[in-house]
Amino acid sequence: MTQILGKQSIQFEKAPHILCGASVVGKKEGEGPLGPLFDEIQEDPMAGQSSWEEAESALQKRAAQKALEKAGAAGKEVRYLFAGDLLGQLIATSFGVMDLQLPLFGLYGACSTIGEALTLGAMTIQGGYADAVLALTSSHFASAEKQFRFPLEYGGQRPLAATWTVTGSGAFVLAPKGGKARISGVTPGRVVDYGLKDSLNMGACMAPAACDTIYQHLVDFGRQPGDYDAIVTGDLGSVGQTILLDLMEKKGFDISRQHLDCGMLIFDGNTQDTHAGGSGCACSAVTLAAKLLPMLEKGQWKRILFVPTGALLSTVSYNEGQAVPGIAHGVVIEHCG
Amino acid sequence: MTQILGKQSIQFEKAPHILCGASVVGKKEGEGPLGPLFDEIQEDPMAGQSSWEEAESALQKRAAQKALEKAGAAGKEVRYLFAGDLLGQLIATSFGVMDLQLPLFGLYGACSTIGEALTLGAMTIQGGYADAVLALTSSHFASAEKQFRFPLEYGGQRPLAATWTVTGSGAFVLAPKGGKARISGVTPGRVVDYGLKDSLNMGACMAPAACDTIYQHLVDFGRQPGDYDAIVTGDLGSVGQTILLDLMEKKGFDISRQHLDCGMLIFDGNTQDTHAGGSGCACSAVTLAAKLLPMLEKGQWKRILFVPTGALLSTVSYNEGQAVPGIAHGVVIEHCG
Repeated sequence: MTQILGKQSIQFEKAPHILCGASVVGKKEGEGPLGPLFDEIQEDPMAGQSSWEEAESALQKRAAQKALEKAGAAGKEVRYLFAGDLLGQLIATSFGVMDLQLPLFGLYGACSTIGEALTLGAMTIQGGYADAVLALTSSHFASAEKQFRFPLEYGGQRPLAATWTVTGSGAFVLAPKGGKARISGVTPGRVVDYGLKDSLNMGACMAPAACDTIYQHLVDFGRQPGDYDAIVTGDLGSVGQTILLDLMEKKGFDISRQHLDCGMLIFDGNTQDTHAGGSGCACSAVTLAAKLLPMLEKGQWKRILFVPTGALLSTVSYNEGQAVPGIAHGVVIEHCG
Repeated sequence: MTQILGKQSIQFEKAPHILCGASVVGKKEGEGPLGPLFDEIQEDPMAGQSSWEEAESALQKRAAQKALEKAGAAGKEVRYLFAGDLLGQLIATSFGVMDLQLPLFGLYGACSTIGEALTLGAMTIQGGYADAVLALTSSHFASAEKQFRFPLEYGGQRPLAATWTVTGSGAFVLAPKGGKARISGVTPGRVVDYGLKDSLNMGACMAPAACDTIYQHLVDFGRQPGDYDAIVTGDLGSVGQTILLDLMEKKGFDISRQHLDCGMLIFDGNTQDTHAGGSGCACSAVTLAAKLLPMLEKGQWKRILFVPTGALLSTVSYNEGQAVPGIAHGVVIEHCG
């Protein structure tokens, strides 16, 4: 039986299981709507380290440890690590995972990285290349602002379309069996560029990529939006959501009843001053670990399409007048007995 | 039959084939010892573009096109792209591959990225997830100097331990069969940190990682150096080579007869003023495409261990006083036919 489905999807013969997820977040995330659901809240923005980057590495290390603990015996079987972050040359990851002493596949998909990590992790498990793997991503508000925007000390004003980078790290252990949720298929995404250039409106930059992946997913699998309890994007925020629903409708699919966005779930925009929502590699990763995965594990949802979204820019490309293309990776996660 | 081998290796049941490799390089590389072997030499350092980064993207696009052309009918079957570069947030890749309209797995392993791409590509083919995939990396001397070191206009002096970033891009099409060389196994590498902090002596920073991967590879596969016609590292250069041979000997393996380094093959250090050798994601990729792969295809070599090496640093980590850890991914390539 071929596992190749349609134009760009894979349907797994033996769907790899997600044994567990772990989430470590910062103070602000802990004060948001999902606060009580996270495994650990790190009150110190520096996480006891001497730089923002080291703090992010510390969060990643903690999330990995937590996931390996939760996985029990399977945690000791973890053979490969699929990990990435937002920083140039993935330094949060390189310095975060060293102590794990695991072979590393360094990944960059901007804020979509956990989708890429889960996809490659599932392909590795089902391919028989490992008994267990770890998928891991992180982001940090302060290291991201320093990398992409203005020094925090400037106190720069942020437009309402801007999102707030989530401080945290999410980690998942995948194995051939033993979990209550499984990855039954994936639709890896393409780079999509609508020519938008506003790095403070990343929802608009990423919405076309989310549309491209969700549309192709539905076509490849021959499914309707109603076949999913939820279609959950990564960090489009409220501005990007409107655009996505509109673009999908033009493609002939109404996903308004199924659509959720991790960026809109993680913060309360009215009280937390986060504007359009949360973003960053950690946004979709910790929301999956703390909120979405438990709902699937308990059977409150039977099947979701998880679509982390990424905006592909650097300060160099931005300052050279390049647009901000997007990418989105689709992962089907189902409840299993 | 399990494909899991030893501590961190995979032996493929049905070794995926490398259908073809393509190499596009800059003028200086064209003047080096491998000059006549490259598919295309781009004389214009800007490759007709308006920035170094766009030039690098153009090289990547050209190498991809060239590989897809060479692959003939199989080129049209390419389903996924595994690609990366050295620049922050992989902008050379994001803007280089957009027109290919292929789902993208963005990878970062510093100069070891082609090893990561070939590894994941081979895992994808053998897993039955695609009929063909493309592995692609690039680097550019000027975009790398701008990203990591000094503006070219400074005319900064470089120490003799420094390497010269190769301008170019290498691309490979992998498929289940049809080539004259195949990937029979892989040993993905771990992050190894000896605490070295000199970003102008990356050979020394990467040598311990190369040793870690080569040693574990030989142990996992139960082989001796003599089982390989060549053990080819990515870009250790002359300084790193000495350290690697020394470290391997301490581990009980003499690889001095098999060892080659792409960084030492690609430039003539005596006449090209490149000091310790070449480096960058393109260094090992174009050397594999132009020199190593043809030797395997013709049967002049039966089996090599290809070990691209990467130095994990960013200007942020470097300026914050962090060390420069290394990583190296091992790929076994064999003649078949």
